[in-house]
Amino acid sequence: MRNTPTDPVPLAQALIRCPSVTPADAGALGVMEQALTALGFTCHRLTFGETPNLYARRGTGGPHFCYAGHTDVVPTGPAEAWTDGPFDAVVRDGVLYGRGACDMKGGIAAFVAGLTDYLAANPNPPGSISLLITGDEEGPARDGTVKVLDWMAARGEIPDMALVGEPTSRAALGDLVKVGRRGSMTAWITLFGTQGHSAYPQRADNPIHRLVRVLHRLTAAPIDQGSQFFEATTLQVTGFDVGNPANNVIPGEARAMLNIRFNDLHTSASLTEHLHAALRREDARYEMRVDCSGESFLTRPGPFVDALKRAVLRATGQEPALDTGGGTSDARFIARFCPVAELGAVGSTMHKANEAAPVAELRDLAALYRMVLEEAFA
Amino acid sequence: MRNTPTDPVPLAQALIRCPSVTPADAGALGVMEQALTALGFTCHRLTFGETPNLYARRGTGGPHFCYAGHTDVVPTGPAEAWTDGPFDAVVRDGVLYGRGACDMKGGIAAFVAGLTDYLAANPNPPGSISLLITGDEEGPARDGTVKVLDWMAARGEIPDMALVGEPTSRAALGDLVKVGRRGSMTAWITLFGTQGHSAYPQRADNPIHRLVRVLHRLTAAPIDQGSQFFEATTLQVTGFDVGNPANNVIPGEARAMLNIRFNDLHTSASLTEHLHAALRREDARYEMRVDCSGESFLTRPGPFVDALKRAVLRATGQEPALDTGGGTSDARFIARFCPVAELGAVGSTMHKANEAAPVAELRDLAALYRMVLEEAFA
Repeated sequence: MRNTPTDPVPLAQALIRCPSVTPADAGALGVMEQALTALGFTCHRLTFGETPNLYARRGTGGPHFCYAGHTDVVPTGPAEAWTDGPFDAVVRDGVLYGRGACDMKGGIAAFVAGLTDYLAANPNPPGSISLLITGDEEGPARDGTVKVLDWMAARGEIPDMALVGEPTSRAALGDLVKVGRRGSMTAWITLFGTQGHSAYPQRADNPIHRLVRVLHRLTAAPIDQGSQFFEATTLQVTGFDVGNPANNVIPGEARAMLNIRFNDLHTSASLTEHLHAALRREDARYEMRVDCSGESFLTRPGPFVDALKRAVLRATGQEPALDTGGGTSDARFIARFCPVAELGAVGSTMHKANEAAPVAELRDLAALYRMVLEEAFA
Repeated sequence: MRNTPTDPVPLAQALIRCPSVTPADAGALGVMEQALTALGFTCHRLTFGETPNLYARRGTGGPHFCYAGHTDVVPTGPAEAWTDGPFDAVVRDGVLYGRGACDMKGGIAAFVAGLTDYLAANPNPPGSISLLITGDEEGPARDGTVKVLDWMAARGEIPDMALVGEPTSRAALGDLVKVGRRGSMTAWITLFGTQGHSAYPQRADNPIHRLVRVLHRLTAAPIDQGSQFFEATTLQVTGFDVGNPANNVIPGEARAMLNIRFNDLHTSASLTEHLHAALRREDARYEMRVDCSGESFLTRPGPFVDALKRAVLRATGQEPALDTGGGTSDARFIARFCPVAELGAVGSTMHKANEAAPVAELRDLAALYRMVLEEAFA
C-alpha cells in the first residue's frame, strides 16, 4: 500500500459539478466510467427506458464483491436556501458542500478512492469487484438497479455479496450498518354504504362510521412488538376523504389511504389479508388496491456481515450497530440475489439545503471502504 | 253548517298555478289575501329582506288560534319526469297533480275551506283566528316565520295555540300528529397534529388517527335511548377530509363534519360540550364550529293536543299517534311562543315528481280542519 491514501475529494467534486437531478445524468456516469476504466474495470453503460446506468467489473473470479450506488440526486429546493451554488462543490473550512455531498456522490468517490488504494496493494485480488451505479435511485427506481440486476443475472454475473454505499451512519462514521430494511406498502380503500338524509340514518348506511371502525380496529393496537433485528411494524392512515359538502347528507362512500412499514414477521400478502380481515368484519362492499414498493428483507449474521464488522472495528475502534430502520433503498432489489448490507457516511444533511460532507469524514470513509475490501477478500 | 262543504280543490289549483319556487312568490300570497279578505280577515303583507309573507287575522279576542303554513314550493326537478306540467294543477281520476299539491298548497286550501265552513256555522267564534303564511319555508327560513313572529310579538299578537299544516300523516289522513321535533345541529371539526414522513411515525403526530379515535368514541354507542316522546338522538359523521395526495406523508390536520338530531334530553349547548369532551381526551389542538338550525321542542299533552286528538277521532274514527320524528319545520320557531302541533295531508309524494293529493283526501282534510277549529274553541 502506498504511503499517501488517495483523496476522494476531487472525484466527489467532479461528480457534484454534474447537476444530475433525477432523471438527468449530466455527465456523472461518464466521470465514473473514466475513473473506473483507469483502474482496469470493464464498463457497460446500460440504458433502460430513459434511465442511464453503469455496470463496471474488474476480474471474473469468485468471490464477486459488488458496490452499489447512485449518481442521481434529489432536487435542490430554493437556490436562495443555499450558501453556495448547490452544484459548485465548494470546500470551506474542511467541509465539502453540494447536492450529493453525502447522498451519495461523496460516498461513491470514497469507495473509488479506497478501491484505488486496495488495488495498489492488491493488484490481483482473490476474486472480482464490480460497481453497480444507477441514475434512478431517488426517482421511481423502475429502470435502475432492478433492471441492471436482471441484466447481470442473465449474464451469470450475480455477486456473492453487495455493499450499498447509502449514508447510513448516525452520529459517527461506521456506527451503524444496515443489514435489512422494512418493507413498505400502501393500500387505497373505498368503502361503500347507502346514501341518505342525516335526519333518517336508519334508512341509510353510513360508510364513514364503518370506515372509522375499520381504521380504529387497525390502529388501536400495534401490529407487532418488533422482531430480533427490526422495529415494530407501523401502520399510518395517510388519507381519509369523503368530499361531501352537505351537512344533511349521509354520503354513499368513503375512501382511506394507509401506509405500512413492516418487519420480517410479515409480507405484503399477509398484511393485505390483515386489512381484508378488518374490512370483512363490516360486512359492507369495499374495494382495495394495494401497492408494495418493497418487501422487508434481512441479511442475517454470517461471513459478509462479520467482514463489515471487522472493517468498522479496525477503522473506528468500535463495533457497528446492526440496524434495519428507515425508509427503502435499492438494497431491497439486491437482497433477492445475495447478502447485502449498507454502510456509508453520516447522512444528517441529506436531501436538505447546504448538504455537506466533512473532508476528513470522506477520507475516513475511503479508508473504511479499503478495509471492507480487505476483510471481504480475507 | 251548510249542507255542501266548501271544496278546497279550486283554491288549491289557483295556488299551484302560481310557480312559487322559493324565493319566488308568483302571486300565491295575493291569492291567499283575496280569499282571506273575503272571509273577513285583516291582511298584512310583510316583506323581510327578499321574503314575502302574509299575516291575516280575524277578530282580536282570546283564545287566539293560529294556522301556519307556506306557499313556497321546492323546485320541480326535470320537467320530463312529470306527466303533466308541474304548475298545471291537473285533476285526473280523482287526484290533483302539481308541485305543492301536498306540501302544502293543498293543505292551505283545505284549511281555508274548513275555515269557511266553520265561520259559516260560527260567524262569531269565541276567540280569534289568524294565518301566518310565509314564502320562505323551503329555503333558508331566515326572513319567514321567525321574522313574522317577532313582528306579531311586537304587536302583542302572540297566539295561544298554533297548528302547522305540514303533510304529517303517514298512511292515512290524521294518523299522526307531530307534537315536537328533534333539534338539529352541525359541527365542523379540524384536528391538528404534526406532519411527518410515514416511515418515521414516532417523529410525527397523526391527526387522522386521533380524529378516528374521537369519532369512534362518538359513534361506538348511542348517545341516548330516546325519551317518552322522542326517538333516540342520532349522530352522523357526514364528512371526513384530509386532502393529502402523498402516501408517504402523515398530514398535519384532518377535518370532520357531524350532524346531530337530538331529542329533549339535550340542547345544542350540552351536545357541544359532549363533542368538546370527546375531543379534549386527545390532548391535541383542535378547532370546532357549531351551527344549530333548531333546538328540540315538545308540546306536552294538554288542552291543545287533546283538542287535536278529539278532532282526529271525530273525523277518522281513530286516535292519532303523537310523534316527534323527521326533520325540522317552522314549528320550531313557533314553539318558543306557544303550544304548537303539526297535522296535515299524507306527504308520500312531497318533493317528488308528480306530487299529488287525492281530491277526497283534500276534502277530508278540510273537514278535519273544521273540526279542529270546533274543538279548539270548544
